[in-house]
Amino acid sequence: MNRMERSDELCGEQSESFSLAVDAMGGDGGPETVVAGLALAADRHPGARILLVGDEKRLRPLLAKHPKAAAICTVRHAPSAISMDMKPTTALRVRDSSLRLVMNAVAEGEATGVVSAGNSGAMLALAKIVIKTLPGISRPAMAAISPSMKGDVVMLDLGANVACDWRNLVEFAVMGEAFAKAVLGLPSPSIGLLNVGAEELKGDEKLRQAAEVLRESPLSNQFHGFVEGHDITAGTTDVVVTDGFTGNVALKTGEGTMKMASGLFRQVFSSSLAGRLAYLLVRPALERMKDWLDPRRYNGAVFVGLNGVVVKSHGGTDAEGFASAVDVAMDMVTHHFNEGIRDRLTHMTSLTGSRINAEGERQSVA
Amino acid sequence: MNRMERSDELCGEQSESFSLAVDAMGGDGGPETVVAGLALAADRHPGARILLVGDEKRLRPLLAKHPKAAAICTVRHAPSAISMDMKPTTALRVRDSSLRLVMNAVAEGEATGVVSAGNSGAMLALAKIVIKTLPGISRPAMAAISPSMKGDVVMLDLGANVACDWRNLVEFAVMGEAFAKAVLGLPSPSIGLLNVGAEELKGDEKLRQAAEVLRESPLSNQFHGFVEGHDITAGTTDVVVTDGFTGNVALKTGEGTMKMASGLFRQVFSSSLAGRLAYLLVRPALERMKDWLDPRRYNGAVFVGLNGVVVKSHGGTDAEGFASAVDVAMDMVTHHFNEGIRDRLTHMTSLTGSRINAEGERQSVA
Repeated sequence: MNRMERSDELCGEQSESFSLAVDAMGGDGGPETVVAGLALAADRHPGARILLVGDEKRLRPLLAKHPKAAAICTVRHAPSAISMDMKPTTALRVRDSSLRLVMNAVAEGEATGVVSAGNSGAMLALAKIVIKTLPGISRPAMAAISPSMKGDVVMLDLGANVACDWRNLVEFAVMGEAFAKAVLGLPSPSIGLLNVGAEELKGDEKLRQAAEVLRESPLSNQFHGFVEGHDITAGTTDVVVTDGFTGNVALKTGEGTMKMASGLFRQVFSSSLAGRLAYLLVRPALERMKDWLDPRRYNGAVFVGLNGVVVKSHGGTDAEGFASAVDVAMDMVTHHFNEGIRDRLTHMTSLTGSRINAEGERQSVA
Repeated sequence: MNRMERSDELCGEQSESFSLAVDAMGGDGGPETVVAGLALAADRHPGARILLVGDEKRLRPLLAKHPKAAAICTVRHAPSAISMDMKPTTALRVRDSSLRLVMNAVAEGEATGVVSAGNSGAMLALAKIVIKTLPGISRPAMAAISPSMKGDVVMLDLGANVACDWRNLVEFAVMGEAFAKAVLGLPSPSIGLLNVGAEELKGDEKLRQAAEVLRESPLSNQFHGFVEGHDITAGTTDVVVTDGFTGNVALKTGEGTMKMASGLFRQVFSSSLAGRLAYLLVRPALERMKDWLDPRRYNGAVFVGLNGVVVKSHGGTDAEGFASAVDVAMDMVTHHFNEGIRDRLTHMTSLTGSRINAEGERQSVA
């Protein structure tokens, strides 16, 4: 059986035998972090079948050290790896990199999704070329989950598309809604369009047009309208849609502000003897808060809108963080994330017209 | 003497006898908050001379209650007021509103600056038409001070210009630098351009072009290059330059995140008896932190790039917040903020070329 599978892989037939293809060579921690992360993930997803792609000589001893990871992994050797600072255009020319081979595995139907902690730019470029966008989607977007006062919120795009038009924003809304369903388990997620004010006349033409299309779409009941920066952490909507430039700035501004707040509170507890005593009193509550805000819990930005699940783990994460990225990917695989988008798009295209489709075709060829 | 001044005012001659013209009718708190705020400001700026414009019948009894405010104020009656939800285009047609009269006072050289807690959109529109932009500046921007781990940071634009080109961004850099000098007292403020990455190739054309112009300008030594969202609270640069859409979203996202962080910490201290005990131990340190983050300390967004100082107080602020807005305006008046911009522009126009000037002329006529 194992033998047969192996020959399937070599022939590149549509066997779809793996849940995920994992790039072992990406990220600052390299294969050590990836394999340790897979050992943690194995506990949570005992049924997962992972195609682990990378330098076989380095992977074998690591799997021997982590038998739990070994139990769910099949190793495939990749002769080269994409460095963290390689330009996407250069990365595209490397045919035998671990990142290329995991993308190939999805394109050829061997695996349903990909996880890598590697170079984001290269990952997006390869995913677009090898896995390709879903029919009806002009451009993939980067989505992530972030905390709010009312629960987790899905935000996209976070930087895949610096410039966007109204069609892109409408597609992001469709993909974000499907993502919130699959990963947050919400039956009917609400959607907000990020703007400088909540009034209908605020913002530029592309925002007003996207809002108009969404108000007349099958998503109209879930479309809240415009939201502002403070609505992200207020949890006003479950999904926050924006262009990649604004989303990237908002995400990083939020992270920076949270870091400043943590620093200030650390000072309160460390600047005096009374503070250190107080710390002892509230340590359990502080630990719970820290767990809740743990960036590793939110690790796993996702490229949505592709013919497969593509999850990017933060390059600097540890094993626990990598396991979270695997969690997100497994949620998306299990809950048929892409089927959700496909269904929705079937009902949307009648409204947004053939323009979205035409744009999609052009983009995926380019 | 008083009599003569009064006649000067009536003739609208270039007497420049008032430091500030204050709109008494703006904001949720109305004249009560404004007059109470001026009483606080009078302690800090005993030499200030304020032209207080609004409904005289309401102002007289309030000034009788606040003799400190009365000591620095001269009242001018305005028959009408601009409501908080009036459209800018409608506000422009009201010739006798308190907001219009304070703008007129600056345009006619009676006062050096304006403070209002009123309708921002109407304020910007009136300021553009009545006070007009500085020569060489195509569009005014909205700037504010926000806290960072290294000290206060000036950010602009915060929403006056939803769409910007590279010239606007260069002008914002010039104005932001002058603002940081005048209000933060920094001798040589550093400047960052907000982008999705620090690398030179990140972002769109207008950002790369603005960076190129700044690198070759007299500000080149102070120009740090691109900064990201997390650099705002890290205090990487003293001035953060961005378009009005991104700036507005970043500001509100930061405020929202700080609110969420405060809420989480309140929970730590209130969810158990140990927490309440701990609170008693660290209360002084928490109070200091609260003072440091007090949004009232950061009240006073400023419209820069106009032929006068124009400070917008938050509509929902209290007397202390209004006094802070007066502080900012007085700092700008005292430190000759606009002269700083004018000097810099003289040295910049040779570089950015006549295009900026031409654009400036066109805009101020429009």
